[in-house]
Amino acid sequence: MEEWLIAPISALISLLVALYLYHCVKKQDAGTKRMQEISSAIKEGANAFLKREYTTLAIFVVIVAALLGIFVPEPVWITETKIKNISLALAYVFGSFSSALAGYFGMDVALRANVRTANAARKGLTRAFPIAFRGGAVMGLSVVGLALLGISIVYGITGDPEIVLGYSIGASTLSLFVKAGGGIYTKTADVSADLVGKVELSISEDDPRNPAVIADNVGDNVGDVAGMGADLFDSYVACVMAAMILGSSLGLMEMNMPLIFAGLGIIASVLGVTVVRVGKRGDLGKALNLGTYITCFLFGGLTLVATIYLQIDYKIWEATVVGLIAGVVIGITSDYYTSINRPPARTTAEASKTGAAINIVTGFSYGLISVFPPLLGIAIASALAYFLAGVYGVGMSALGMLSIVGTIVAGDAYGPIGDNAKGIAEQSGLGEEVIDITDKLDAAGNTTKAISKGFAIGAAGLTALALLATYQTIVNDLTGELIGFDLMNPLVMLGVFVGITIPCLFSAMCMLAVSKNSSVMIEEIRRQFREIPGLKEGKEGVRPDYASCVDIATKAALKALVPLIVMSITATLAVGFICGIRALAGYLAGSIFSGFMLAILMANSGGMWDNAKKFIEDGHFGGKGSDAHKAAVIGDTLGDPFKDTAGPSLNTLVTVISLIASLFAPLIIAYALIGL
Amino acid sequence: MEEWLIAPISALISLLVALYLYHCVKKQDAGTKRMQEISSAIKEGANAFLKREYTTLAIFVVIVAALLGIFVPEPVWITETKIKNISLALAYVFGSFSSALAGYFGMDVALRANVRTANAARKGLTRAFPIAFRGGAVMGLSVVGLALLGISIVYGITGDPEIVLGYSIGASTLSLFVKAGGGIYTKTADVSADLVGKVELSISEDDPRNPAVIADNVGDNVGDVAGMGADLFDSYVACVMAAMILGSSLGLMEMNMPLIFAGLGIIASVLGVTVVRVGKRGDLGKALNLGTYITCFLFGGLTLVATIYLQIDYKIWEATVVGLIAGVVIGITSDYYTSINRPPARTTAEASKTGAAINIVTGFSYGLISVFPPLLGIAIASALAYFLAGVYGVGMSALGMLSIVGTIVAGDAYGPIGDNAKGIAEQSGLGEEVIDITDKLDAAGNTTKAISKGFAIGAAGLTALALLATYQTIVNDLTGELIGFDLMNPLVMLGVFVGITIPCLFSAMCMLAVSKNSSVMIEEIRRQFREIPGLKEGKEGVRPDYASCVDIATKAALKALVPLIVMSITATLAVGFICGIRALAGYLAGSIFSGFMLAILMANSGGMWDNAKKFIEDGHFGGKGSDAHKAAVIGDTLGDPFKDTAGPSLNTLVTVISLIASLFAPLIIAYALIGL
Repeated sequence: MEEWLIAPISALISLLVALYLYHCVKKQDAGTKRMQEISSAIKEGANAFLKREYTTLAIFVVIVAALLGIFVPEPVWITETKIKNISLALAYVFGSFSSALAGYFGMDVALRANVRTANAARKGLTRAFPIAFRGGAVMGLSVVGLALLGISIVYGITGDPEIVLGYSIGASTLSLFVKAGGGIYTKTADVSADLVGKVELSISEDDPRNPAVIADNVGDNVGDVAGMGADLFDSYVACVMAAMILGSSLGLMEMNMPLIFAGLGIIASVLGVTVVRVGKRGDLGKALNLGTYITCFLFGGLTLVATIYLQIDYKIWEATVVGLIAGVVIGITSDYYTSINRPPARTTAEASKTGAAINIVTGFSYGLISVFPPLLGIAIASALAYFLAGVYGVGMSALGMLSIVGTIVAGDAYGPIGDNAKGIAEQSGLGEEVIDITDKLDAAGNTTKAISKGFAIGAAGLTALALLATYQTIVNDLTGELIGFDLMNPLVMLGVFVGITIPCLFSAMCMLAVSKNSSVMIEEIRRQFREIPGLKEGKEGVRPDYASCVDIATKAALKALVPLIVMSITATLAVGFICGIRALAGYLAGSIFSGFMLAILMANSGGMWDNAKKFIEDGHFGGKGSDAHKAAVIGDTLGDPFKDTAGPSLNTLVTVISLIASLFAPLIIAYALIGL
Repeated sequence: MEEWLIAPISALISLLVALYLYHCVKKQDAGTKRMQEISSAIKEGANAFLKREYTTLAIFVVIVAALLGIFVPEPVWITETKIKNISLALAYVFGSFSSALAGYFGMDVALRANVRTANAARKGLTRAFPIAFRGGAVMGLSVVGLALLGISIVYGITGDPEIVLGYSIGASTLSLFVKAGGGIYTKTADVSADLVGKVELSISEDDPRNPAVIADNVGDNVGDVAGMGADLFDSYVACVMAAMILGSSLGLMEMNMPLIFAGLGIIASVLGVTVVRVGKRGDLGKALNLGTYITCFLFGGLTLVATIYLQIDYKIWEATVVGLIAGVVIGITSDYYTSINRPPARTTAEASKTGAAINIVTGFSYGLISVFPPLLGIAIASALAYFLAGVYGVGMSALGMLSIVGTIVAGDAYGPIGDNAKGIAEQSGLGEEVIDITDKLDAAGNTTKAISKGFAIGAAGLTALALLATYQTIVNDLTGELIGFDLMNPLVMLGVFVGITIPCLFSAMCMLAVSKNSSVMIEEIRRQFREIPGLKEGKEGVRPDYASCVDIATKAALKALVPLIVMSITATLAVGFICGIRALAGYLAGSIFSGFMLAILMANSGGMWDNAKKFIEDGHFGGKGSDAHKAAVIGDTLGDPFKDTAGPSLNTLVTVISLIASLFAPLIIAYALIGL
């Protein structure tokens, strides 16, 4: 059956709509000369970083591709299907390239949309909002469009889901490093700018006198926009691929369902994105959420029709919908723990009255509590999906969550565009009223951001479980036995214990890079304020040396990437080749366990500290400048690397580890020290 | 074979030696009138707290005992062996009582030793050290003595290891609440005293003008001394019991080995403790460590002789020694991450130069990294032990680690005695020289403390794995089938996800109690300084109202206990009775995974922040009073509830959960919603 061709067709539609929206954004007025100056400084910095990062990663990709071609799935001197080795290596390169492209597209449109949004804000909220949102939509639709088109091309040419695994691993390794690199970049700049600017000199966040302000804005783009695009690109590809392998290994008639459902998800997203409009009353949060809900309903309906038309087992559809519902529920509960209107953030704000330590203890504790709802949600959803349709059901429920990713990314990428617009408005002195409007855009972004973060974590959790099942399926197919991963097997348990430590080590290395490099940048900022005459006083025409801070952040991020790459790949292969496939299964499970716990803890406590600070800035507990505010700023600064550097990379880390394990399973079975 | 009687005999010897040492301490001079005043204020507060806590827990113990008698192992209206229900309930009460007694003994001697140590310090280090160390030794020897005597009595009367399970669960639930209650008490007082005293008023830690200073000293005793005694009492009992059940279920000839080896461990500890002496050069750390190493060698030797003499399989001895060695290695590596002389603490200290947020990010990151060595150590030790002697080997390796617990507790309880002696010396104005000597005692305590904390975590980790194996053994015996806990079983996975969240919730609730109650106490301290004339200036004869702070801490700790009790027990039973025994196995494993990760992270990052602050106080990076110091104090204050409230309770929480699961296994198999 060729019904799966709906996948490439809807991917192309998605890309065309993205292109159209891109032109809508581009033709808007880019504002005053000063605004364009700032905007091009940000663009320059961001492009310079991405260029250097991609160059570094290109070397890595070529080396890995060569190794894959030689060794996987079987060493080239043994195998009788050399073509498979070559296809895998090529698919890997193609996956990396597509992921990079999606990140670049998203960033390019974000960099154009931000200045245009700032300019449109001069004419009011209803003029500014569509530009920012369309910018986000371009990102969302090109992520899913490129991802599904890539999968379709690889699958169309080879007809082999295992080659799609190569594509997926290319997308994921690239994502991991773009995410981690961008995360280190953005927080090095942000933390340094804040600590000297806000804390020491009491100037506002986007004050143009601050030498790190451009680096900070660049960071928003390379971290939040390009990073997040790459992240969801990789989860999306991984979950479609996992469902395909599970289906094909089980020999299911329905094995093309993942592609068909993914295609329908894209159509739902395209329609969902286009209905987002803001009325005269201007309730932005409502408009954004409406888009999400409409996409969900459309997806549910379209897939039901497909199920009836193609006469597929209803249980598969049900498992898919379970995933979708779980995603929404997890998103809403996550919102509770970070929202400025809810007890956790408010209690944390109140705790700031007794100092930074108590603020941090309180926020950290609520972060720990917030681990409960998403983990319970993933647990129940995966168990339900399993009982409905076995491991294939788990894969399809992950797909159900991720199917609406186009809309989710649109709402999420909208956030940094609004944030950047605000920065540009401040730096070019557009006046209080305009800044207020951009502020509203920014705030609405925060609401949807919490929900979509919960969504992303839930989806990654289910995907990781599907990948674990995929690993088992591959191992069973290869050995011809039913290999179990019993917790009471000492090798499985050993693997779990080691696996638990990997997300700990990874996030620690990311955060240490931020803390080490911030010290360097802080010295540089202080030096500029000390040595450039007239800078502190804001003398007309005196500008700081923005480029030096951009340079520090770039070098820092790239330097930190190498040990991260080495650690995460070698640890996985070491466990596999020394302790065998059972230990490796435990290792995957262990990294899922601690990875998700840490990811949720860090994302939510970070968001909570941020909002606790904002709550105080709104005039509570002494307001801006009070001791409570100073304490809350410390919590917020700690939360920055939690929520934007370490936390978000962990999803991707877990995906990469799982994919590597699946890819190397044949070699490990053949050559591990401790065999079956 | 009645060789197991060596267990009660050596337990009695241990108690007699403890009694002798107790009298040695007691007959020392208790110092000046002012010293005795302070000492009796601390004693009063500590006794009052313990009395109220034990009264609350007595009600709980009686209710639980009644429920156990009615329902476990089978409902009393069904069972044909009513005597087993009654024995179990009585063993439970006996276990609680013994654990409470061990905590009380330890605290009583600590409260006597501290003032006498302070007094002896006036005559020099070599006079003060033996008193402090003997105080610790009384604690160590009575913990192991009471524990093994209790086990022997229960086993001697019933001959049934499953009734020993009742004893163990009594000890563990009591420990959990003493540990959590004491931890909340001590840190509420400590954090509040520090935040107002050190940070706001810049007075020294033990300044008698501070209204919270007595509560702080009381906290050291009810938290560090009584809590730790109860903690190791419970791990010790649980691991002996687990090894006994594993041995008896496997029908091993060697089933009494756990009792014999435990008895030999006590003899090794008694001898090891008595050799600890400090020479004229006064290297205290060396003296303390020597005691530990001698105990290890004696234990290894004695058990080898017993193995030869009783003609037991050598592999069991080897598994035991693997545990012992792993304990020492884990202890030494843990020391690396907290020691003031090593890069982690020093880098964290240096990071304080750029503010509290960077200090905390850095310390937290090293804390995450420090999870790696102990988890790897536990993983390798348990796998080795398993390959040597199956699950029984895992049980025996846990026993190997815990066998030398007498010496470990002695060195660990020594720490708070030295700390308290320092407090008393300061408050009674004994002069710089004396304070210096008590400072040295305190510092030496910190070195051994790091090693013994690593030891305790490693031991608890292995014990938890042994308890998981015990649970499986019980389930298999009951069902007559070989029930596996495969990770790919959706119920097991669901259990793991839920289990992961329990240590998160538990530690969050503990820390929130501290942060909430500190706010109350801080207000009270500020009020006293404001309203009591002459207090701030230190006018002769003006004393703060110590009792009100003691009262706040007591109420706070007791109030927080009820939800902790309810949450941890009901969650366990809910998972079991709703999702069945496989989910419960996953739940146990999940709580082990996140429990140990969090326990190590919190213990080590807390210790590191403490030492980073001390390193700055030693004159680095600006020294006391500098901005770096202020930042480091914030990190240290955050670390306090990490390392002394939340972290240490987690070991015990995991033990309690595992024991409850084993105890309720028959009921769950019979009545769970989702059956086998």
